[in-house]
Amino acid sequence: MAERVSGPEIERLIQLLARLPGLGPRSARRAALHLIRKREELFGPLTEAMHAAREKIVPCSICGNVDTVDPCTICRDERRDPSLLVVVETVADLWALERAAALSARYHVLGGTLSPLDGVGPKDLNLASLVERVAPGGVKEVILAVNATVDGQTTAHYITTLLAEYNVRTTRLAHGVPVGGELDYLDEGTLAAAMHARTEF
Amino acid sequence: MAERVSGPEIERLIQLLARLPGLGPRSARRAALHLIRKREELFGPLTEAMHAAREKIVPCSICGNVDTVDPCTICRDERRDPSLLVVVETVADLWALERAAALSARYHVLGGTLSPLDGVGPKDLNLASLVERVAPGGVKEVILAVNATVDGQTTAHYITTLLAEYNVRTTRLAHGVPVGGELDYLDEGTLAAAMHARTEF
Repeated sequence: MAERVSGPEIERLIQLLARLPGLGPRSARRAALHLIRKREELFGPLTEAMHAAREKIVPCSICGNVDTVDPCTICRDERRDPSLLVVVETVADLWALERAAALSARYHVLGGTLSPLDGVGPKDLNLASLVERVAPGGVKEVILAVNATVDGQTTAHYITTLLAEYNVRTTRLAHGVPVGGELDYLDEGTLAAAMHARTEF
Repeated sequence: MAERVSGPEIERLIQLLARLPGLGPRSARRAALHLIRKREELFGPLTEAMHAAREKIVPCSICGNVDTVDPCTICRDERRDPSLLVVVETVADLWALERAAALSARYHVLGGTLSPLDGVGPKDLNLASLVERVAPGGVKEVILAVNATVDGQTTAHYITTLLAEYNVRTTRLAHGVPVGGELDYLDEGTLAAAMHARTEF
């Protein structure tokens, strides 16, 4: 359609919206029209929120989280157990674990996983800063909350080797049946793991 | 999670992104993180594109399309047949028909359909301006490209009555099997309509 139907500004907005994860070309058009329709309640506020967020967002120099302060809110939080460090692949994983609110720990965001096929080596991840945080001895346990994928597990093993010389426990998330999950829909690996790690009723 | 994990600017961005159609709370968080990661290539350009679009977008005073000029690019296009007017419910429908590029016509955007249950009456739609466009006599055919829903068809009937006193043909889109569609997945109404309107092979 290009410039024939609407102005180049609208076309450009649609093209950029389509690059957001979860939005394809069709939903980007719908989103653009929704913005135009909700000009006062949504378009204006969202534009300003993006402007404000973009100006203010900084990566945390300690853990790699994103926040509007550095060190981030989590690293500044004195109430969190400084001896417990949760290693995650991405900021999205950090947020997910925080929503679960399972532990009052600190985090360390790797920024990905080791992946020789994609050319991602140890230098591409925040591993040096992890060792720096563990070396002084304040951290007693490192929970490797990486994904249960091959790359995730490879990375977990690598980190275990890396931290072997320090006096720190390394643990990983339990495998098992998701809460509310139906057995019939689960893969054999998960079922075997859940069976293996069965607990007293 | 609120302010505990990240700054209020990030929270606000996520909340507003979640109000876009097609994005829920989870995909809004993913979109926000994607924006933060692609700060230079996407976050900046998108913020500026939204700013530019928001400043420039105006509804077309003739047809109700949205564009950055008024009258809109379509209404200005001298090559389009001025005797053919396609009536659509929304700008999204206009864009969809333009992508199909079936006709070189002008459009008229109603802004919705008659819906007594939702309190939408004739005064809430761009019907007066439609009559104004048809009355001078230049328009020979009005194609009612409204959705094949009850409200859409009610609206189409109303418009037919409204235009009865003018010398203009009113037509509607053909019903039938979607191109590439499998019969087994189609509803009976569509199949009956397609059978009824069968053409020579």
